[in-house]
Amino acid sequence: MAWDTEGTRRRLKEAATAEFAERGLDGTTMTRIATRAGINKERLYSYYGDKNALWEVVLADELDRLASAVALTGAGLDDIGDFAGATYDYHAAHPELGRLLQWEGLTRGPAARMAERSAHYRDKVDRFTQAQRAGRLDPGVDPAHLVFALIALAAWWQTVPQLAEMITGAGPDDPTERARRRTFVVEAARRLAAPR
Amino acid sequence: MAWDTEGTRRRLKEAATAEFAERGLDGTTMTRIATRAGINKERLYSYYGDKNALWEVVLADELDRLASAVALTGAGLDDIGDFAGATYDYHAAHPELGRLLQWEGLTRGPAARMAERSAHYRDKVDRFTQAQRAGRLDPGVDPAHLVFALIALAAWWQTVPQLAEMITGAGPDDPTERARRRTFVVEAARRLAAPR
Repeated sequence: MAWDTEGTRRRLKEAATAEFAERGLDGTTMTRIATRAGINKERLYSYYGDKNALWEVVLADELDRLASAVALTGAGLDDIGDFAGATYDYHAAHPELGRLLQWEGLTRGPAARMAERSAHYRDKVDRFTQAQRAGRLDPGVDPAHLVFALIALAAWWQTVPQLAEMITGAGPDDPTERARRRTFVVEAARRLAAPR
Repeated sequence: MAWDTEGTRRRLKEAATAEFAERGLDGTTMTRIATRAGINKERLYSYYGDKNALWEVVLADELDRLASAVALTGAGLDDIGDFAGATYDYHAAHPELGRLLQWEGLTRGPAARMAERSAHYRDKVDRFTQAQRAGRLDPGVDPAHLVFALIALAAWWQTVPQLAEMITGAGPDDPTERARRRTFVVEAARRLAAPR
């Protein structure tokens, strides 16, 4: 019987994603990840290299998934509202991504794949700049800060869920509150970008 | 010679604050904290109880400092802008607070001193509600979501500094960019709350 290479690789990466999201890069080990996947540790090393390389693959893949799920289709106010709403939905449905980004922020090292990720954001900033020139967005708002703020508004609920609960009096499992938060995020994004 | 009790307590708490900010509640030990302070571990236990109790004291004290430094003096647009700007300044100058809140969010347990902290936020929400009734803020914006978003806009830069750098192309040590971020935060807070 042939090795099920693809299946093995996938199971290893799923285990790594879950472990890294739960404990961060420093908080887990290659042994824990292999054990979680139920696969020999030597296979893990041979497929993915060392722990740092595996972390980079996991984070890059999760960011690719986000980028595929949440497209910025245009740069008008409706597009910006839709983008913020879809980003909110994605983070609510995939809390592991927010956790990976937080672990990355907490560990102070250089971020993974900075050039590639910077180019991805630069594309959004450029689009907002063009929309400002066309009069569709307020030219007085820094387009890079706007991109950053849209992500903040969408992702902050997952980052400090305990604060969200203390301030709103409701938890993330309350479907009414979850829908109201989404509405707020979409409207807030539009308000930040709207011409006056 | 009398024991310098106050000085010892303070040194222990400073060491605990630094350790918890760096490694989180689960990532450090009472031994590490005592060693960092250069004080006997038994003193640490006798002054502060166990590690969970010490964590609660540290977090509550840091939140008290924030509340003292950043007052919401009124509930008009200028007050909201000032509050967001001062919160941004505080988080930029005290990254340990943002880290403590992130560790708390990442560990999923019940938050420390929820009743007291909820009351603190409730006071802000109530003030915004009154200002909405008086026509000074847009009545269509959920006041609890507004409080949460102001904190997000102010604190997100410290939470994911790597994203901020990738998106803006500048780091937090660049004084021009730091001032520009602050200006954006103040203006964004006003935009979210302004009547239309």
